[in-house]
Amino acid sequence: MPTEPGASLLARLHELAAFSDEPGRLTRLYLSPSHIAAAHRVRAWMEQAGMCAAIDAVGNVVGRYEGREPHHSALLLGSHIDTVRDGGAYDGTLGVLAAIAAVAALHEAGELLAHPVEVIAFGDEEGVRFPTTLIGSRAVAGTLDPRVFEARDAEGVSVRQALPAIGGDADRFRRCARRPEQVACYLELHIEQGPVLEEAGLALGIVSAIAGASRATVQVEGTAGHAGTVPMRLRRDALAAAAEMVLAAERIALATPDLVATVGRLEALPGAVNVIPGVACLSLDVRSPRDAVRAAAIAALRQAFATIAARRGCRLGWETLHDAPAVLCHPTVVAALEATLTRLGQTVRHLPSGAGHDAMAMAALCPSGMLFLRCRGGISHHPAESISAADAGLGVRALIEAMHQLDRILWSDHVRSD
Amino acid sequence: MPTEPGASLLARLHELAAFSDEPGRLTRLYLSPSHIAAAHRVRAWMEQAGMCAAIDAVGNVVGRYEGREPHHSALLLGSHIDTVRDGGAYDGTLGVLAAIAAVAALHEAGELLAHPVEVIAFGDEEGVRFPTTLIGSRAVAGTLDPRVFEARDAEGVSVRQALPAIGGDADRFRRCARRPEQVACYLELHIEQGPVLEEAGLALGIVSAIAGASRATVQVEGTAGHAGTVPMRLRRDALAAAAEMVLAAERIALATPDLVATVGRLEALPGAVNVIPGVACLSLDVRSPRDAVRAAAIAALRQAFATIAARRGCRLGWETLHDAPAVLCHPTVVAALEATLTRLGQTVRHLPSGAGHDAMAMAALCPSGMLFLRCRGGISHHPAESISAADAGLGVRALIEAMHQLDRILWSDHVRSD
Repeated sequence: MPTEPGASLLARLHELAAFSDEPGRLTRLYLSPSHIAAAHRVRAWMEQAGMCAAIDAVGNVVGRYEGREPHHSALLLGSHIDTVRDGGAYDGTLGVLAAIAAVAALHEAGELLAHPVEVIAFGDEEGVRFPTTLIGSRAVAGTLDPRVFEARDAEGVSVRQALPAIGGDADRFRRCARRPEQVACYLELHIEQGPVLEEAGLALGIVSAIAGASRATVQVEGTAGHAGTVPMRLRRDALAAAAEMVLAAERIALATPDLVATVGRLEALPGAVNVIPGVACLSLDVRSPRDAVRAAAIAALRQAFATIAARRGCRLGWETLHDAPAVLCHPTVVAALEATLTRLGQTVRHLPSGAGHDAMAMAALCPSGMLFLRCRGGISHHPAESISAADAGLGVRALIEAMHQLDRILWSDHVRSD
Repeated sequence: MPTEPGASLLARLHELAAFSDEPGRLTRLYLSPSHIAAAHRVRAWMEQAGMCAAIDAVGNVVGRYEGREPHHSALLLGSHIDTVRDGGAYDGTLGVLAAIAAVAALHEAGELLAHPVEVIAFGDEEGVRFPTTLIGSRAVAGTLDPRVFEARDAEGVSVRQALPAIGGDADRFRRCARRPEQVACYLELHIEQGPVLEEAGLALGIVSAIAGASRATVQVEGTAGHAGTVPMRLRRDALAAAAEMVLAAERIALATPDLVATVGRLEALPGAVNVIPGVACLSLDVRSPRDAVRAAAIAALRQAFATIAARRGCRLGWETLHDAPAVLCHPTVVAALEATLTRLGQTVRHLPSGAGHDAMAMAALCPSGMLFLRCRGGISHHPAESISAADAGLGVRALIEAMHQLDRILWSDHVRSD
């Protein structure tokens, strides 16, 4: 097989990266003008690849390539086309455009699988514009809480108000949901967003589980004061307490296998050069593929933070924002991916995903799994995000092979279960 | 003497506190509408107290109460009438309104001192609106760098553009400057802004020196990354490095007598819950009444920060913004204040000022000193700032007595030096 599919896939990824809400950098937020324009471009590419395509009520682009058995359950491939602010060209879009390229290869060869194949370009995976996430995949999985439509962006625009621009309609969101008998499985190709495959010298890896994640906002209240006049021993500096908490989180995570903990945001108030901070607010993000490890870490963190606050005479507030359990990838999809990598002459390597993905939501609907593709330096959510053309081409070949494997395995299952 | 002067002074302080740029809290920024209105009110109060009063080219309100020798050098009393955002009713304004009350007492008694007395209500002591400070007192002291008139506020308005609203004129700023032979001394009454007098059970304290201050902005550059996918051991988390620096500053200051160090601002970038911070920026404010102590502390902090950054593979940037030496209060003014407290039956207590004051600028022009008044909880720059009526009354009596002491001492000096 020529390497050309990799080069042409990269060219399309770069073409889509030009759809941005901000000049000079890639920011494509859910239901923004650039997201809408990108959705229409993706729809056109789906049609070129032989699919019937449409944009659904929550802004997902859905393309369908019929199988030999038109009313049979579909193999779903997909990922998302929204980005973080100042993000990279591959996160999400790789999985969508590689899936279109894989279907195009079937179409060009005039080949039909037993199952229909659908490619879905989800919106709102990143959760940047609205305080929500996975709207697209949850709508398809039938697990979407309709209250998310009232969530508002920084300008006060609700999801409900933003949907009509893409032809969507909050009141029709239930039509996006698939019944379990309509779908055979979900497979998502995505950049790893971490350094593990690169360190191992592998282009592809099979995701074993998507880490569970807990998020909390921690507020520390001390006493503000004049930076020049309050002696050190009389201070109750909220930022100094928060700094100890940042280091405690780092220490606990370093000492615990399969755990990461991150303080991504820290704000000191009032935030003046010459005022001792009276309040500090920090975000905490804790993840593990093992739920028990995550729960134990959260308990250890709460206790460590409480001890720090008490010793410094500060008050501690802890607000849990989010607690999502780990999601295991389905054995059937994992088996198909193992067979795929073996057929392609690749080492079979399993690794957990520390990041959340649409596959988490889709796992509630059908057997779901993911394939990771090596990215340079493990960098993601950043303009320096990068993959090689050779790896991109291998990703497309892996999706083609995986579709065949899944078509065969799931068809047999179906026949056996009849 | 009745306690009534204290109550009426508090009433005026509260009346002035209603002049605010923001409803519901006290924010009176230099050359804002509320500062201009407050300046006119202060001018009217000066005139009621028997002074000739005017607003000068940089927005200071200056009132003059003639002495028995009209062309003799003046005793200057004063402080500032601008505030921080969401500040208190006493910082600065106490010294201005107490000085007016002290002159009013002379006027009501029909008493003239040998020296004329001037009361000055300076603008721009806090340095909140523009990136400048002490414009008013530096203009009077003759040390103002005219480049400050080009400094701009957050809306892009320069000091030069803002001055005409108060009848000021950047091009006439040199007319504000006094010649040394025109001024005999400068005395400023100010709330302590710290807890020392309250802890000692004293209403008043004599300032020995105004602490020198160094300010720096420290930038730490690590590597941003996905909070879920980058293993702990591969991270170069800029916020974790900054947190160590916050604690190092606290540790060094706790271990060093006569030193305070404060990180008032800390920002992590990009500042997203799910992104390892790639950059952290912190402010550092270091003060001591002893310049050698401050210099040694800055050296120790730079070394500690460099060690932390190097160990974590982060880059460190250090930008010194400001290095102001300590200012000793003048022995003549200190002696007059010692005699004053003794006459009033108060314990004589000396203490350094950790905060900067207009007296720092005035010390370049003439013998200068300060008297601190106890404030509740040591709180300042906050709506909870508070003083008692009894202490306020004692402050006015101390200014009256100090004027007499200074009038006598400085007149003798003058006669001797003739």
